Amino acid sequence: MSSDDFTVRPGETLLSFDAAEADDARLVFIGTIRSPWRERATCPKNMRLARETGQGAAIEIEPPFRAALEGLAPGASLHLLTWLHQSRRDLALQWPRRAETASGTFALRSPVRPNPIGLHMVRLVAIDRDAGRLTIDAIDVLDGTPLLDLKPYFASVDLPEGV
Amino acid sequence: MSSDDFTVRPGETLLSFDAAEADDARLVFIGTIRSPWRERATCPKNMRLARETGQGAAIEIEPPFRAALEGLAPGASLHLLTWLHQSRRDLALQWPRRAETASGTFALRSPVRPNPIGLHMVRLVAIDRDAGRLTIDAIDVLDGTPLLDLKPYFASVDLPEGV
Repeated sequence: MSSDDFTVRPGETLLSFDAAEADDARLVFIGTIRSPWRERATCPKNMRLARETGQGAAIEIEPPFRAALEGLAPGASLHLLTWLHQSRRDLALQWPRRAETASGTFALRSPVRPNPIGLHMVRLVAIDRDAGRLTIDAIDVLDGTPLLDLKPYFASVDLPEGV
Repeated sequence: MSSDDFTVRPGETLLSFDAAEADDARLVFIGTIRSPWRERATCPKNMRLARETGQGAAIEIEPPFRAALEGLAPGASLHLLTWLHQSRRDLALQWPRRAETASGTFALRSPVRPNPIGLHMVRLVAIDRDAGRLTIDAIDVLDGTPLLDLKPYFASVDLPEGV
């Protein structure tokens, strides 16, 4: 599989340049997602669908970052930020397969975006800090997807106003 | 102000290397946050405190990315991803000022993390797509902070399981 799988469809438009050429800041991969999903065709498209499969997933944290897991406990709700490394980065308007019209990239949760960072709300099921292994309830990305960050969820700051 | 403001306190520990030296992937800045906060001392520490100030904020989107705003409308709840450019990136354990113990970076929402990406839940108040200007209800970052992404919020995928 390659990024060629993300073809441009009628009604979709390109940015004036490919964001993949930019170098405004640089990232470190802190770990890797281990998921049941090896192909885009069978990978759940969002976290609701991922949870509905009943399949869990795991996270492998690289050794230098394992000490930073201190304080995480099973049952916690976490935001994961992932690097959706197979996504193209040059689309302004996208036409999702079942949508009636094209929409701007920033109005969609498509993995195709200038910075292909995935945001995923998960439940921590188990953690082995020394081994750098976390078990989570579900995930909606391909096996091998790089991890950028783990953040605890706090309803007081992470819920929309008025909810 | 510089990253020297982030001094290492007793009980805090360093990673074995500085993540700022990594080059696993590269980012593009799609815009800039315009906030009332010019100094860390007066900047709200989270979105709840930011909302409580009653002060709004704005986002300036760079020209190449304005077409990708199509479909965003006032009233929408959005996740913002920002690049917390003044944060150091080399702490494994941190001791927040009012906490009783140190915690791992991934158990905290501190801006100091290997990849200093901020996650902020905001309400879109107004949008001028041609000018690339969005007005939002509140923000908890310094004026001038680079923007990485805007994502619509969907309760069905973004709420913790069972909430």
